[in-house]
Amino acid sequence: MFGSSDDVLVEDEFLRDGLQNEARLLPLDDKLAFVRGLEAAGVRRIQLGSFVNPARVPQMADTDALFSAVERRPGVTYTALVLNMAGLERALAVAAPHLSISVSASESHSRANVGKPVDEALAHIAPVIGRALAAGVTVRAGIQSAFGCGFEGRVAPERVVAVAKTFDGLGVHEINLADTAGLGNPRQVHELTGAVRAAVRPDVRLSLHLHDTRGLGLANMVAGLQAGVRIFDAALGGLGGCPFIPAASGNIATEDAVFALEEMGFATGIDWQALAALSRRLEGLLERRLPGRMARIAAPDVAPNPAKG
Amino acid sequence: MFGSSDDVLVEDEFLRDGLQNEARLLPLDDKLAFVRGLEAAGVRRIQLGSFVNPARVPQMADTDALFSAVERRPGVTYTALVLNMAGLERALAVAAPHLSISVSASESHSRANVGKPVDEALAHIAPVIGRALAAGVTVRAGIQSAFGCGFEGRVAPERVVAVAKTFDGLGVHEINLADTAGLGNPRQVHELTGAVRAAVRPDVRLSLHLHDTRGLGLANMVAGLQAGVRIFDAALGGLGGCPFIPAASGNIATEDAVFALEEMGFATGIDWQALAALSRRLEGLLERRLPGRMARIAAPDVAPNPAKG
Repeated sequence: MFGSSDDVLVEDEFLRDGLQNEARLLPLDDKLAFVRGLEAAGVRRIQLGSFVNPARVPQMADTDALFSAVERRPGVTYTALVLNMAGLERALAVAAPHLSISVSASESHSRANVGKPVDEALAHIAPVIGRALAAGVTVRAGIQSAFGCGFEGRVAPERVVAVAKTFDGLGVHEINLADTAGLGNPRQVHELTGAVRAAVRPDVRLSLHLHDTRGLGLANMVAGLQAGVRIFDAALGGLGGCPFIPAASGNIATEDAVFALEEMGFATGIDWQALAALSRRLEGLLERRLPGRMARIAAPDVAPNPAKG
Repeated sequence: MFGSSDDVLVEDEFLRDGLQNEARLLPLDDKLAFVRGLEAAGVRRIQLGSFVNPARVPQMADTDALFSAVERRPGVTYTALVLNMAGLERALAVAAPHLSISVSASESHSRANVGKPVDEALAHIAPVIGRALAAGVTVRAGIQSAFGCGFEGRVAPERVVAVAKTFDGLGVHEINLADTAGLGNPRQVHELTGAVRAAVRPDVRLSLHLHDTRGLGLANMVAGLQAGVRIFDAALGGLGGCPFIPAASGNIATEDAVFALEEMGFATGIDWQALAALSRRLEGLLERRLPGRMARIAAPDVAPNPAKG
């Protein structure tokens, strides 16, 4: 089904894509404790936050401080999201070794998010990527809304491939296709990922950022695996949905993704039960249930689901 | 990814596999209203209940009455679960045209469920299947715990294939592989389904019964599609989890399965928005949120998930 079962890298993004939607600010010490918890569970790439306007996203205002405070462990990559040159300067000031630098493939999402159409946003981000690469940063270029957008629905695959080719031409190390609104389906993920794979240099790595809004997050991950992707974003507990929509789901849950990958024979190096325990700690802090499933399955006070007739 | 995108048959089982776990009994009139709702949404096969011991499963005690009361529409198949000859006689008495008759592939689950090891349970069910076929009933033979069991973990694939071959030899029309405890993963579903497909007559149809306990329900459905399966069980709202395990998930939600299938280009003949509305009615009756996702997405008072940065 998959050809080979290689290692898979799972990047946890709950500190960024999860917390940015929370009304409550998580104190720096709590963030640091979660970074240590993720490391202890075996997570090898951790997105600490984003270098964006603190007035717009107050939850991310301490990303600089967090980068400075984190003790960097060998074998773990610390990364963050950057959307413009001002953000990159802040990232370089704290010696971020790896960055996600992204644009949206959807015209209306791009205008809503950065006030520019896609072509202008790309022209604007190119020197940011160039400067990051020149500074020795490993650059992952991200394509938001690659599988559709809440404003305009499906985005034409050719548009996504064109953005990927532009990124490829800039010499980025990795290209990330993001299903920002959770609109993608497995067939689409398989086809679009294959089209991007065929359009860029063979040594550019591909990764997928998946949301579980319609319950297809893990199905889309499997479709990505079948298309050869071996890097997936996830968020502890499945954090990341809009807190104003009841039961709206966020990113695929890191513990669920790791469990599924290991069950299928892929090696992640991550202990999903340690993540499940960490996810329950996060639920305690946020005072609500998160959508991830394995935190329930692994709970010590909960018996395994009995087999039924 | 799938070869062809044929029609897919989705069998709704919420009236059986969903309601059998509920503490509250749904009155016959409510059950009839939901049957009409499922028909109106386009569902073409509806499992009305099970002919089992009413003392053990009181929620199913009115299955005979429901079969007699339902007005049978052309193009819709009404079915039920049967586990022994006494149940079959009741099913024949109400002229059930289609039945699921099943055993477990797991020794410990079989002993817990029917008090017999698998071989004895098979020997016991063979004349039931024979009598049903002789009476002109369309028989779907089910293999419970085909992907593992809460008591003993993974079940050897050869055991499942052996049970399937026995069923095949009896001349059944369809073989259903059931992930009763929600332990299956996509690789396993793909491999086991392929192995069963290769072991039985080409004109025996295969179907999958999937639970979403670990969030892999729809991913397993996609793996089944890739293995050529075109019949899937589901339950309105994703009902069917154990009510004593918080957040434990039941069957894949019919509305979510239909949405995903249609998004991938398969034709189900079902209107998922009508199902989502029906699912919200069921939530009203049961006075709790169900795990299905599309009932949230489609809710008229809830805006579509906005695209985020």
